[in-house]
Amino acid sequence: MAEQARVGDRGGGRAEAGHTGRRGAGSGTRDAILAAARQRFADLGYHGATIRGIAADAGVDPALVHHFFGTKERLFAAAMRLPVVPGDLIDAALAGAGPGRAGESLGERLVRAMLAAWDVREIRDTFLGLLRSAATSEQAMTMLRQFVTEAILTRLMAAAQAPHRAGDTIPSTNQARATNPARATDPAQARLRAALVASQVVGLGLARYLVGLDPLTRASTDELVAAIGPTLDRYLTGDLS
Amino acid sequence: MAEQARVGDRGGGRAEAGHTGRRGAGSGTRDAILAAARQRFADLGYHGATIRGIAADAGVDPALVHHFFGTKERLFAAAMRLPVVPGDLIDAALAGAGPGRAGESLGERLVRAMLAAWDVREIRDTFLGLLRSAATSEQAMTMLRQFVTEAILTRLMAAAQAPHRAGDTIPSTNQARATNPARATDPAQARLRAALVASQVVGLGLARYLVGLDPLTRASTDELVAAIGPTLDRYLTGDLS
Repeated sequence: MAEQARVGDRGGGRAEAGHTGRRGAGSGTRDAILAAARQRFADLGYHGATIRGIAADAGVDPALVHHFFGTKERLFAAAMRLPVVPGDLIDAALAGAGPGRAGESLGERLVRAMLAAWDVREIRDTFLGLLRSAATSEQAMTMLRQFVTEAILTRLMAAAQAPHRAGDTIPSTNQARATNPARATDPAQARLRAALVASQVVGLGLARYLVGLDPLTRASTDELVAAIGPTLDRYLTGDLS
Repeated sequence: MAEQARVGDRGGGRAEAGHTGRRGAGSGTRDAILAAARQRFADLGYHGATIRGIAADAGVDPALVHHFFGTKERLFAAAMRLPVVPGDLIDAALAGAGPGRAGESLGERLVRAMLAAWDVREIRDTFLGLLRSAATSEQAMTMLRQFVTEAILTRLMAAAQAPHRAGDTIPSTNQARATNPARATDPAQARLRAALVASQVVGLGLARYLVGLDPLTRASTDELVAAIGPTLDRYLTGDLS
């Protein structure tokens, strides 16, 4: 899965690579775009940086940036050397794809997708590196906050607002709510629901992989899915009052 | 509450303070103990550092360390300049004391106690500083992990194993479980339950105070207590399978 989900250029930010023996202007151009992107994201945040501005800095046409990377989200993932695009994992869970078993709820699939990603060393190390720089640099934190808000919370908000898709099961303890689900029609409420999900997922990642709290490092994926999945389901669509 | 809960010496680790005009050998001795404690905790971790060893480094009798600081947990809190002893907040919540309303569940009281502490700037800044140094230093992370495991998880384990105390209410959605509560008699299970609570509480602190995710920074204490309290109750005593 990690191979399949790999994105972007892992060659680093050397814009001059094209002039130092590497074959093809394409590779040099790509590196120049990534170097410009890293700089713009750091200086202006995820929100403030534009593909147009990054293209200008790299001396290329914006269409070429779109051609290479697609969206700003994918360009960011490539520039930060993320081995996966976090939004792809969420999209897969929302669509009922990705790792998981038939009949699992959205919350369970989200926990499973997150653990499957973090259990790959390369992915884990990259995210922990991002967290570390965010913990020590206000600029990096702003960039991370904006990325999480725009690329991740927006998707989770949609999950809180949309009805469950076909194939989802409602956990039996939520049966009563299923007949009259407390869907978040208010965008502010949906944003809060999405942020609650993020708080539990980030806390799990931190406690299991960064702090290395013993019971969480030893727990199996299935144990964690069973324990935390219903929490995410409740945050997304349950009664929070 | 912050004033009441304040612990230890805020004068820093200057063991020589007693020789530079400060009145009283007591203050110099206290500073020497704190300096020795900081060094031993950093070098040996929370688990490996002993009051006996710290006393030896400070050139005092261990009884004096106990006299000044009570327990190793309180000495650690003072040495790290924590304005509160985290275990005290948990003990208060377990006892039904601390901030909160009559009839709140243990999970709700835990969320409320945590928010009350973090909403005090001095406390927040100290904890964020600890998190930052842990994120960037393996040594600091080991110390934090051991402290959390010994001082915090142990208390939460007890909460997962003991029946709720008088005055606790079981949230209505858990009514079915209350008749046959899934108490964790297995210590490993109780440890996992405690660690799950820690993961959500740390994630909330991180998302609300360090990352500053907008919906969580704007949410009221009551909203967060209502949303997250039942999660902690389920982690402590609900059905996780």
